[in-house]
Amino acid sequence: MTKRGWVRENIRKMSGYVPGEQPGKKKFVKLNTNENPYPPSPRVLEALISEGTVDLRLYPDPDYGPLINKASKVYGLPASSILAGNGSDELLSILTRVFVGEKDRVVYPSPTYTLYETLVSIQGGEPVQVPFPDDFSLPENISAQKGKILFLANPNSPSGTFVPTREIERVAKKFHGIVVVDEAYVDFAQDSAIGLVAKSENLVVLRTLSKSFSLAGIRLGIALAPRWITQEMKKVKDSYNVNRMTLAAGCAALGHISWMRMNVKKIIGTRKRLTAGLVSLGFSVFPSRANFVLARIKGQRLEGLFNELKKRRILVRYFDTKRLHDCLRITVGTDEEVSALLKNLQKIMKKRD
Amino acid sequence: MTKRGWVRENIRKMSGYVPGEQPGKKKFVKLNTNENPYPPSPRVLEALISEGTVDLRLYPDPDYGPLINKASKVYGLPASSILAGNGSDELLSILTRVFVGEKDRVVYPSPTYTLYETLVSIQGGEPVQVPFPDDFSLPENISAQKGKILFLANPNSPSGTFVPTREIERVAKKFHGIVVVDEAYVDFAQDSAIGLVAKSENLVVLRTLSKSFSLAGIRLGIALAPRWITQEMKKVKDSYNVNRMTLAAGCAALGHISWMRMNVKKIIGTRKRLTAGLVSLGFSVFPSRANFVLARIKGQRLEGLFNELKKRRILVRYFDTKRLHDCLRITVGTDEEVSALLKNLQKIMKKRD
Repeated sequence: MTKRGWVRENIRKMSGYVPGEQPGKKKFVKLNTNENPYPPSPRVLEALISEGTVDLRLYPDPDYGPLINKASKVYGLPASSILAGNGSDELLSILTRVFVGEKDRVVYPSPTYTLYETLVSIQGGEPVQVPFPDDFSLPENISAQKGKILFLANPNSPSGTFVPTREIERVAKKFHGIVVVDEAYVDFAQDSAIGLVAKSENLVVLRTLSKSFSLAGIRLGIALAPRWITQEMKKVKDSYNVNRMTLAAGCAALGHISWMRMNVKKIIGTRKRLTAGLVSLGFSVFPSRANFVLARIKGQRLEGLFNELKKRRILVRYFDTKRLHDCLRITVGTDEEVSALLKNLQKIMKKRD
Repeated sequence: MTKRGWVRENIRKMSGYVPGEQPGKKKFVKLNTNENPYPPSPRVLEALISEGTVDLRLYPDPDYGPLINKASKVYGLPASSILAGNGSDELLSILTRVFVGEKDRVVYPSPTYTLYETLVSIQGGEPVQVPFPDDFSLPENISAQKGKILFLANPNSPSGTFVPTREIERVAKKFHGIVVVDEAYVDFAQDSAIGLVAKSENLVVLRTLSKSFSLAGIRLGIALAPRWITQEMKKVKDSYNVNRMTLAAGCAALGHISWMRMNVKKIIGTRKRLTAGLVSLGFSVFPSRANFVLARIKGQRLEGLFNELKKRRILVRYFDTKRLHDCLRITVGTDEEVSALLKNLQKIMKKRD
């Protein structure tokens, strides 16, 4: 046996998750990883400075007291139903580690956030991908599938589309396992499945401060779940998985909801402009409830367009798969960024005609 | 099947890792979780403020460029041999996820850091604990054990004792699996197994900024390993497992080694005083190369003493196990804190006589 034979077979065979490009020091109009174009609340920096001057030499609170209290008020659930993570990515990872053993099935509609597949593979589980229909509505048979977990990104990425809460309620009742609703983008949708958590035994909702709160750089995710689930998750999480600075920054941001709402409102306005602009250039755009849109020219491979934009220092996201090769996923940036994108798209597409 | 039947059996049956007490707002002399009593480099706060004013809305660099370059200089290994984690706890967790499948054995001498057992249990693996002899030297037969990983905390916690590097080299040569040397406390020992990483195919060294760098609150661990191992670890880690603030703070701290060395020197001085004081009170103290000592009164249960100290607002660590019930683990605090501890111990023990 060679040394790589010591690696678990499922890990050895897999390739890792590939995140969207982070373009180093060169200046780009960066519309590829769904970050918020506006800065976080100024209270975040104040909190960081005051945290930085006191107790960085001490471990953080493993129960995140003040943060959980704040989240409890914002989301209307008791502290025992709330768990914080090093980004919602870590919460997804903790959930798979709690529920998914070797050969266990995990169900999700596809295409969606590709990390689900990675996490299931790490566990040695079996990803069961149920294709979305053309309009990205929920696949009809999905809750009848067997699996330990059903993941549902809502709004979905990369489509931006949204499944109504009443359908999720139906799915949670029927599915014989844990339903995880990944609401990373939900503040841009102005609806949520959080109201279902208290009445359900198998529903977990995940939130993140990366998108609407403009804090992708601090890594803070929040799980909202029945107490019996947060208890099992606590066994798996590292004791100090959220550091002192993130706790302080997260508290400050959750204490300033009006700032987040103001930015969300601007982004929704720009999303409308972006959508209209793309449609007038000949794209079809899936109805987005997120801070990005999926734009398509049916049957036409858009890798060239993606590369042309990149040459002009505009970064969007292209997925080289059968289902998505005729699409671009474009983050809703500032009005200026979106204007630059539309202008450049127009030039490139004119030249091609 | 009840709902808890959905949880993996190994998780359902385990209890989580219990970290040392963090005493909320009440004032304590806190000598229970091996934190550094001195503040981190002032450059850390400067770095945090400048990071906080720029790009928190953007994801961190998933490859941690500047931090890895800094670590490469400090530890003398190429960037491809270095991986950062959300504390070294996360790096331990990533290693078990790479190498330990259900029923796989993992070997370590005991008593040691109890998180190893937790992490192996989460994987559904089998912890193989080989008892340390009375003097906490390396168990003779340990490298002959079968296992995917051999964990060795060096200096060991809770004993503070140190296994010489040449013995580790011998173990790594003989053990048929991965040897993970957890050097959380090694800056207080002034020796290291890092020099072995480049010449070995199966040796991983873990470092943390929590202890010698006074940064337990930021959560930053560093793995030093052969490239083939960091490559597999990258598949399992979250893309953005280390946030922007931690990266900035870590860079600043690694750029100011003289500050860390100054604090280490003070702590080693105080360790000598603490040890002498404990010996004069009738304890035997294991020879410590860490920022804590393990003090023992052979055969005498010390839970009462621990509780008496706690009543007097002094927190140390007591482990209620057969092997350790006659010991207290005491962090080396400031000279003032250590004086307070010794004075109170003397009073309590006098009263008891």
